[in-house]
Amino acid sequence: MMLYMGHLAREAARELALATTAQKNEALERMAARIEAGSEQIIEANRQDLEAARSKGRDLAFLDRLMLDGLRIAALARGLREVAAIPDPVGQTMAKWTRPNGLEISRVRVPLGVIGIIYESRPNVTADAAALCLKSGNAVILRSGSESFLTSLVIANLLNEAVTAAGLPAASIQLVPTTDRAAVGYMLGGLGGAIDVIVPRGGKDLVARVQVEARVPVFAHLEGVCHVYVQDSANLDMAKRIVLNAKMRRTGVCGAAETLLVDRRAAPMHLGPLVEMLIEAGCEVRGDPETQRADTRVRPASEDDWPKEFLDAIIAVKVVDGLDEAIDHIARYGSQHTEAIITEDRVEAEKFLARVDSAIVLHNASTQFADGGEFGMGAEIGIATGRFHARGPVGVEQLTTFKYVVRGSGQTRP
Amino acid sequence: MMLYMGHLAREAARELALATTAQKNEALERMAARIEAGSEQIIEANRQDLEAARSKGRDLAFLDRLMLDGLRIAALARGLREVAAIPDPVGQTMAKWTRPNGLEISRVRVPLGVIGIIYESRPNVTADAAALCLKSGNAVILRSGSESFLTSLVIANLLNEAVTAAGLPAASIQLVPTTDRAAVGYMLGGLGGAIDVIVPRGGKDLVARVQVEARVPVFAHLEGVCHVYVQDSANLDMAKRIVLNAKMRRTGVCGAAETLLVDRRAAPMHLGPLVEMLIEAGCEVRGDPETQRADTRVRPASEDDWPKEFLDAIIAVKVVDGLDEAIDHIARYGSQHTEAIITEDRVEAEKFLARVDSAIVLHNASTQFADGGEFGMGAEIGIATGRFHARGPVGVEQLTTFKYVVRGSGQTRP
Repeated sequence: MMLYMGHLAREAARELALATTAQKNEALERMAARIEAGSEQIIEANRQDLEAARSKGRDLAFLDRLMLDGLRIAALARGLREVAAIPDPVGQTMAKWTRPNGLEISRVRVPLGVIGIIYESRPNVTADAAALCLKSGNAVILRSGSESFLTSLVIANLLNEAVTAAGLPAASIQLVPTTDRAAVGYMLGGLGGAIDVIVPRGGKDLVARVQVEARVPVFAHLEGVCHVYVQDSANLDMAKRIVLNAKMRRTGVCGAAETLLVDRRAAPMHLGPLVEMLIEAGCEVRGDPETQRADTRVRPASEDDWPKEFLDAIIAVKVVDGLDEAIDHIARYGSQHTEAIITEDRVEAEKFLARVDSAIVLHNASTQFADGGEFGMGAEIGIATGRFHARGPVGVEQLTTFKYVVRGSGQTRP
Repeated sequence: MMLYMGHLAREAARELALATTAQKNEALERMAARIEAGSEQIIEANRQDLEAARSKGRDLAFLDRLMLDGLRIAALARGLREVAAIPDPVGQTMAKWTRPNGLEISRVRVPLGVIGIIYESRPNVTADAAALCLKSGNAVILRSGSESFLTSLVIANLLNEAVTAAGLPAASIQLVPTTDRAAVGYMLGGLGGAIDVIVPRGGKDLVARVQVEARVPVFAHLEGVCHVYVQDSANLDMAKRIVLNAKMRRTGVCGAAETLLVDRRAAPMHLGPLVEMLIEAGCEVRGDPETQRADTRVRPASEDDWPKEFLDAIIAVKVVDGLDEAIDHIARYGSQHTEAIITEDRVEAEKFLARVDSAIVLHNASTQFADGGEFGMGAEIGIATGRFHARGPVGVEQLTTFKYVVRGSGQTRP
């Protein structure tokens, strides 16, 4: 059954690759309208999923991720229309040059092919991910978590109706119609070459399993242990604003800062006020001995705190001997996700930007900008920390590959 | 031992990523000079490799691949200087834009990291591959075939001396110092995360093993089953020139045409002359019944001939019902490497270019242009038919990835 889904997806991908922008946008518009029209159906299925989750004793955070109401469904439909508004990456010419023999060579964007999405309790991923895949000309195979399965199934059926009504293949969007856990294993194996890339959307356990077991490329980040380094010449007001935002705006996102590094030369002036501000904002501070001396409310940091993704109002703070130690600390404990330097010294800033090997490096800006929307990509399917193909926010462009188109007038190779 | 090599390579890669263009070019210049100065040493080691291969009864083609003489060593040194002349991809800004909030976002090329090269009997790969990796700021771990091992070892030592003399880390270029076959397995496992990508250089058995067993990304093509499609409106003279070149210029390269597809409407005019030309050029023609009727010297093609990479003066010829059948045939039997259409009809040509899903598609030009040098990339480490990251010729640009550099003035995320 799974292999057959892969076969259908591969066939659909061949057609989708040739769909016009207008066709794809019509499908997205119809998807939005069907979601709106099917709102009650979705809420009814979601009620059953919620009931089952409650009876299993799931906590409030889990139930909140699972829950869809009228407002959230409206946001879902709005998201689909926003994807319609993103420029179509397929067919874009990335580069073009003419050779001395007259051959015109273009590098042209084409879809990746078939994308597998494995997700957990958020049923909205069904629509969000399907929309980005469709816009980039890719067929998608969706594997919903068992606890949001009924909701995802209703959404996927509505999307399917819309896609078919727009004249695109029904198999452009397929939901694995079972909660059997073996299906995940089949997908990670690539369904006999049918799946080109897998994008896991969910907690660390899911991402780790996908990264270890997948036999096809994966776009993902396991964690975001993001650092802010406050350099000697940082403007204290700016440092306070950025550190507060990077840590506390939302503590549960992957771009949230988890470690604050303070230049030893900046410590006398900046360390106390930064720590005080964090604590007063409700953040627990775990510091090295020097940070502990700066404020009695600082708890001692253990070695385990440096590589930790707290995803909570907790921050690890360390005083470092300048840029080199900051960079070494980040290389040792970081996750190659997002790091920022706060400084008025452009030379130091450029060194940091060049030498820190993360998907995103910032100067004088909050790490919470690590987001496809904030980058102007329209929407993202996630953030990747691997080095291949997609790195950083994964938007519609990153869901494409390219081919070389060569136009000649009879050239042969000498 | 292998894990320690991986560790050294990873350390070297961190330094190499920051090396200036001048430093890397100096190293390449010194590498060329050392190869020239060490010519006798190389030839002496090569003599021993050749003797051992001869005593094992290796055939002439094998011995020719293995052999290095003064001329070939001079070409090796010239190749190193040519790589020095290629523009440095590292640090190039691929795209740059400013967000409404004033954030300046750049996508900047950075090295991939550590590249593993697994090759067979051609000892020149040692220098060619090392040069491209160094120019793109990557550390390289080279695994030579056992039969060219002594030659490769001498070359690698010379390169090492040059790299060290240029002030770059010695571990920038490492040769696995053993012919133990287990080393290949370790490399395919990624050396505990130390290897970012593997590039196999050799025959189909090697590439197939690497593609099946590697736990890290691979840049490779298993085979090049390249097609030329002659459409109804093709100019016969041009078609003859291109088909002859595509098949017969060199029959052993991956861009050589293996199948000729002729539009049924073109057959009465074009099929006979094309087949006659090929046979008279010394090419064996294996055709479908219609092609057999066109010339009595045509042998019958079997189903096995359509997906076959002959790498020899043999071509399979089939009459097809127009563009759709040609495209279906290519999708079914091709290897997504390189395909060409010959036609004077621009609309048909554009359909072919858009719908054939290969790394390289050409209009009115020979498939033998499938080569990084011919594309203007300077040199290539190989051709990739995968869909990820690198597709088509793999030059220095394709050996890089990118990161996002964000320059702000105190921005926080609302």
